[in-house]
Amino acid sequence: MSATLTFDLKQLGQNAKTASRALAKASTTLKNAALLAIADALESHEEAILRANALDMEAARVSGISEAMLDRLSLKGRLRGIAADTRKVAELPDPVGEIFERQTLPNGLNVHKRRTPLGVVGVIYEARPNVTVDVAALTLKTGNAAILRGGSETLRSNVALIAAIQAGMRTTGLPAEAIQLITDPDRRYVGELLRLDQYVDMIIPRGGAGLHQFCRENSTIPVITGGIGICHLYLDISANQTASLEVIYNAKTQRPSVCNALDTLLVHESQGSAFIPQVIHRLGQAGVRFRLDPRALAAFGGEDPSVHPAGEGDWDTEWLGLTLGIKVVSGLDEAIEHIQQHSTAHSDGILTEDGAHAARFIEEIDSAAVYVNASTRFTDGSEMGLGAEIAISTQKLHARGPMGLRELTTYKWVVEGAYQVRK
Amino acid sequence: MSATLTFDLKQLGQNAKTASRALAKASTTLKNAALLAIADALESHEEAILRANALDMEAARVSGISEAMLDRLSLKGRLRGIAADTRKVAELPDPVGEIFERQTLPNGLNVHKRRTPLGVVGVIYEARPNVTVDVAALTLKTGNAAILRGGSETLRSNVALIAAIQAGMRTTGLPAEAIQLITDPDRRYVGELLRLDQYVDMIIPRGGAGLHQFCRENSTIPVITGGIGICHLYLDISANQTASLEVIYNAKTQRPSVCNALDTLLVHESQGSAFIPQVIHRLGQAGVRFRLDPRALAAFGGEDPSVHPAGEGDWDTEWLGLTLGIKVVSGLDEAIEHIQQHSTAHSDGILTEDGAHAARFIEEIDSAAVYVNASTRFTDGSEMGLGAEIAISTQKLHARGPMGLRELTTYKWVVEGAYQVRK
Repeated sequence: MSATLTFDLKQLGQNAKTASRALAKASTTLKNAALLAIADALESHEEAILRANALDMEAARVSGISEAMLDRLSLKGRLRGIAADTRKVAELPDPVGEIFERQTLPNGLNVHKRRTPLGVVGVIYEARPNVTVDVAALTLKTGNAAILRGGSETLRSNVALIAAIQAGMRTTGLPAEAIQLITDPDRRYVGELLRLDQYVDMIIPRGGAGLHQFCRENSTIPVITGGIGICHLYLDISANQTASLEVIYNAKTQRPSVCNALDTLLVHESQGSAFIPQVIHRLGQAGVRFRLDPRALAAFGGEDPSVHPAGEGDWDTEWLGLTLGIKVVSGLDEAIEHIQQHSTAHSDGILTEDGAHAARFIEEIDSAAVYVNASTRFTDGSEMGLGAEIAISTQKLHARGPMGLRELTTYKWVVEGAYQVRK
Repeated sequence: MSATLTFDLKQLGQNAKTASRALAKASTTLKNAALLAIADALESHEEAILRANALDMEAARVSGISEAMLDRLSLKGRLRGIAADTRKVAELPDPVGEIFERQTLPNGLNVHKRRTPLGVVGVIYEARPNVTVDVAALTLKTGNAAILRGGSETLRSNVALIAAIQAGMRTTGLPAEAIQLITDPDRRYVGELLRLDQYVDMIIPRGGAGLHQFCRENSTIPVITGGIGICHLYLDISANQTASLEVIYNAKTQRPSVCNALDTLLVHESQGSAFIPQVIHRLGQAGVRFRLDPRALAAFGGEDPSVHPAGEGDWDTEWLGLTLGIKVVSGLDEAIEHIQQHSTAHSDGILTEDGAHAARFIEEIDSAAVYVNASTRFTDGSEMGLGAEIAISTQKLHARGPMGLRELTTYKWVVEGAYQVRK
């Protein structure tokens, strides 16, 4: 495979579809053996993978990308961990073949639903080569074929990783075409992939808002959009302030660059002057900067270089860093209204000791994850016990919130009869 | 409302979104009361509705549409039945609020999933005014708002029906904007509706393949495609021929114009000469015409005005009428291969007494409904015990096969804690 090779995406799709049929029939034992073989191959290919990754890193450095992006790109010292994660996927239960909603109809027909693979999954992602292995492991476990399109900055790393993955697959006799990579960095292949509905059953974009919108607007294949989180916590009048402060600290600072990190804190007006200075003091220690609405500024009272008035678009900004918006609201109604207007329906929470308020918040906030007295950072497949996560969906069809193995499957209706006919 | 009024679809969307919030909070009791009030209003508006319908019928007759379409368009003598169906929806269990997958995580967080309405559903359909009431009842029951775009031939009927529906809604205090109709027949509003992703959560097209493709290609909102069925039955070597003949007769003739009717019969080569003449004799009595592949022609042997050689595209044609393709295959492998290549993944079945063959067929045929020894006509919400049906999905995300009330919902993760933070 060469990075400049121009190829036939339709052929890739056809290969994937054919491979998906073999994958769908593969037993759990065989799929797990393939996962272990892939983990072994990742380790035995370590040298080649790290050499390719070093070239990607070098090119990225020359192009002047940020340290944060360089860090994401690097596989150095991480390959053993990635192999270990792949082995863990082998240990998870296989959802394929699961039977549910079994019933016998009055006419004697035996009906059940049976969980089956989706078929072919297209994943479009950015400069994170670990996603390559992640997606390969989760789609393989669920009997799906995958077509991957990673960021061009990681093309050499991805080619080396895919070579190892395919080598692992081959040792078990499963088709290597179950995991294919678009190795031509030309962006038009993204558009082409999005219209390959003849072969591809689902598109998962993993990246920023722009990528998600591009997929939504150009795909003829169902797209799982998500991963964009303007997350809110509302400090209600009855909240335990000391405990709430730690929740807010955690939600904002534990990993500020991710989608489930806190963006906006809403504070009940009666709590403002007591609580907002504490927030600014405590979170300020972690380097957080603040955008306050006029009432929050008034409640804060003092002066601080980290405190600024909130601007026009601040309530609609996913900060992905150490910035926090703070707004004073008159109560639950205004908090709900603000969240309904500005949330991206990812993760939003209330901090309260009032059960009726908690119940109303749960009822009226229409987000993938709704929290009472907990950090928004828990919206995560492994935190929620899924064992693995392919994406976090913020749309409402198919799956919402963290998506694990089961969310990579569909079902078929199986109807078994004795030659029944419809009256 | 006037049929030529040009309006702001964005405003319609915003109204629907606002109404959807009220609907989402409405109790089951209130929603059921609204359903009964709608049924009453349909009856009390009968005169106005039938007058509008008569005008639609007249215009349709002048335009020279087919008798079959005229029949679908007519509400005469059907309104009481439609009202009765609406009352039946009130009796069905309400899926909204259902709690599932409750768990307590090791850190003490209480997590569950709660079924919630989708929000706003857009439905695009053709000349069947009964769909207007059907969709209104099912979306209302599930707490969703709906934006409807019916065929322009039924615009007057739909306007009259919506007036009755909204009058019924109003008596219970629920917002009439929960059910809105696009009353401008200009087709560009279809395109606009498909891009109203800010307000609309799901699009359901109900119509032919062209409409489904148009939606898939132009929508930025998730689309439930489906309803297109090239359906197969494979008569295996061990099938009970007498019983199979009745299943085939039923699947082809009981209602030939619908998506789950049989299109292609595959016959094991060892059965051909005994069975194919019986099929042609029995189904011929119901006026069925046949398209036979060369081996089936040879097996038939005789001459019959209803029997023709199959043409190039016949295996990829959904007949929607009294035509049946018949092909002889060498066995299960070839049958599966043919179906994999030509099926639209709607409903396909095997007729066999061989359990191993049945199991392989179920495993390898990736259709929404897979049958063993039964008519494909059972792929239907009410036949499958769903109580109602909004659509039959042939895509793999969200829902597959008959979609009932539950498939008009999504879920949220509810996480209740004691100020837990992520480590």
